[in-house]
Amino acid sequence: MASLGLVTPQRMHFAEPLPLRSGAALAEYTLVYETYGTLNAARSNAVLVCHALNASHHVAGEDADGQRGWWDNLVGPGKPVDTDRFFVIGVNNPGSCFGSTGPMHTNPATGEPWGADFPVMTVEDWVDAQARLLDRLGIDQLAAVLGGSLGGMQALSWSLRHPARLRHCVAVATAPNLSAQNIAFNEVARRAIVTDPDFHGGHFYRHGVVPARGLRVARMIGHITYLSDDSMEAKFGRQLREQTLAYSTQAIEFQIESYLRHQGEKFAGYFDANTYLLITRALDYFDPAREHGGSLARAFVPAQARFLLVSFTTDWRFSPARSREIVKALVDNRHSVSYCEIDAPHGHDAFLLDDPRYFAAMRAYFDNIARECA
Amino acid sequence: MASLGLVTPQRMHFAEPLPLRSGAALAEYTLVYETYGTLNAARSNAVLVCHALNASHHVAGEDADGQRGWWDNLVGPGKPVDTDRFFVIGVNNPGSCFGSTGPMHTNPATGEPWGADFPVMTVEDWVDAQARLLDRLGIDQLAAVLGGSLGGMQALSWSLRHPARLRHCVAVATAPNLSAQNIAFNEVARRAIVTDPDFHGGHFYRHGVVPARGLRVARMIGHITYLSDDSMEAKFGRQLREQTLAYSTQAIEFQIESYLRHQGEKFAGYFDANTYLLITRALDYFDPAREHGGSLARAFVPAQARFLLVSFTTDWRFSPARSREIVKALVDNRHSVSYCEIDAPHGHDAFLLDDPRYFAAMRAYFDNIARECA
Repeated sequence: MASLGLVTPQRMHFAEPLPLRSGAALAEYTLVYETYGTLNAARSNAVLVCHALNASHHVAGEDADGQRGWWDNLVGPGKPVDTDRFFVIGVNNPGSCFGSTGPMHTNPATGEPWGADFPVMTVEDWVDAQARLLDRLGIDQLAAVLGGSLGGMQALSWSLRHPARLRHCVAVATAPNLSAQNIAFNEVARRAIVTDPDFHGGHFYRHGVVPARGLRVARMIGHITYLSDDSMEAKFGRQLREQTLAYSTQAIEFQIESYLRHQGEKFAGYFDANTYLLITRALDYFDPAREHGGSLARAFVPAQARFLLVSFTTDWRFSPARSREIVKALVDNRHSVSYCEIDAPHGHDAFLLDDPRYFAAMRAYFDNIARECA
Repeated sequence: MASLGLVTPQRMHFAEPLPLRSGAALAEYTLVYETYGTLNAARSNAVLVCHALNASHHVAGEDADGQRGWWDNLVGPGKPVDTDRFFVIGVNNPGSCFGSTGPMHTNPATGEPWGADFPVMTVEDWVDAQARLLDRLGIDQLAAVLGGSLGGMQALSWSLRHPARLRHCVAVATAPNLSAQNIAFNEVARRAIVTDPDFHGGHFYRHGVVPARGLRVARMIGHITYLSDDSMEAKFGRQLREQTLAYSTQAIEFQIESYLRHQGEKFAGYFDANTYLLITRALDYFDPAREHGGSLARAFVPAQARFLLVSFTTDWRFSPARSREIVKALVDNRHSVSYCEIDAPHGHDAFLLDDPRYFAAMRAYFDNIARECA
């Protein structure tokens, strides 16, 4: 299949403060973004892709290091989200660690890195920052907003905060809020990070260290929740690394241990600890029903978009039941909604993999959107 | 209901080395144990209770600090495991941290605390140590061996290693081995502990510190897996600690965070880090099918006991499917087996709670055992 080839990230600076839900404001900030395909004359074929925890603006194509975008299997020429027909935008959210203004950048008020003082961001704040980028790009209305997991929450939030600015909302493997168990896993990961002596209260940059121990543990916990029990069993089971047991509490005995340690090590090498805290907190806070007495149906009253919700049977982080809650709230409002529950073995991670039924559903839905844009 | 009142732990020293599955041996050791009820003249009414990760010999009654035993709701006069009819024995396993020889005790070879050099123990080693205690107590055959979770694994192992020494095997909320996901959670917990700078390679005793950060995180992870998603949701949901959000990554916002931190804090105050490593490793290693080409049915050929297996519908750590694997292996051998799948909301923790259906099943089964002893 044709590839987008090399893509170059772009930067946009915003001098006007971004008011945040916390009551604070981000005084000024830069967003890094990529675009693929061509905006049509009617400016009606733009698709915004929102990223989840450890992803970025680099959705598709290859960056300068030859790294493929995180959703390159889904987005590109001839792919389900077809860049020959859509103008696709990937944007790194503020607070993240892939180029947009974040905790590792200089706090203009102090001349020092923000560190733990970077303002707490919410899904709604990110959506507002993305909307400003679209203003600058001259895009009044998106053909669609698309996201998975935390990205799906952003897509849902778009439909509530800027109802007239998107025609379709595509939310994959997401939830209307985190369950107590979801929050619990986030909290353990955060505790691992903030209690790492190298965290230095979030100001580790000035000490020339990173809280790698905490990040590793956080990532290992996260990783377990991204995979299904079944897929872990199929992939690793009780496979040993060596033929015989070492009878050691610290050596690696099982392949799953080796895999998890590797994932943790890799993550600690590139991800920012303060970003991890900020993004897991944004996940915790997202709860559109909260301001409506807990009624998700009432929260969705203002929505105007048409919706596609996709969930995966073995996703125990954001289970199909959570997507069905959203479907129900939309149906209660007589909003237009399609719902696909994909029987896939890969757990939460399935949203990043090209399961044929999942991608066929995405292709069919985006084909319809493209026809409307023509 | 009548209580056993104050119980006093006893100690038994063993000068003969205990050969271990690792090939090493525990040169000498002391076991701490408690007994409740009276051994009958025929010495036929003894019930051994095996403990899980963070429990001890203190199964029932009150210790000198007024602490009730961890299964005091199940074991006592007139209770399902009736100490008016049974002579019940609780024993702390070697490697644990409640009195029996463990990593915090002196390694006779060095005169220093064992620390990380304490030999790695397996379920089979514990069973052998327990068998020696019974030798000393003059008990040739147990009416039953009873355990939940890791304790259930010990009960199963008894039926394979000492088939003639027990008439009944009662294994609650257990599994024939750990799944990849189970091992993964153990491994993350272990990494949190051993990467805590206060762990000092397992020799923290001599530094006058404990790796409390790691232990807290380990316990928080464990705790999440003991509770069901549903029971966490029912108990905590998204309840906030304060009326308004603080918008902070480190402050406690949700009640579930407060609960987990409290559990972690409490645990780090009394549990030994090396014991945590040893016991989770014993869990990882247990796999009676391994020496039989992966066939659990073949592993159970030598068993002679009659079995009761109990599982709980919402237990996602050791799900009913895992108990059914054991039932199938027993049925394949035409062994006598009763199986109760209890519809309980509390997840893995259910085995410690007095769900009426669960306790009724236990009472009925132990009533029958008692009648045989009379």
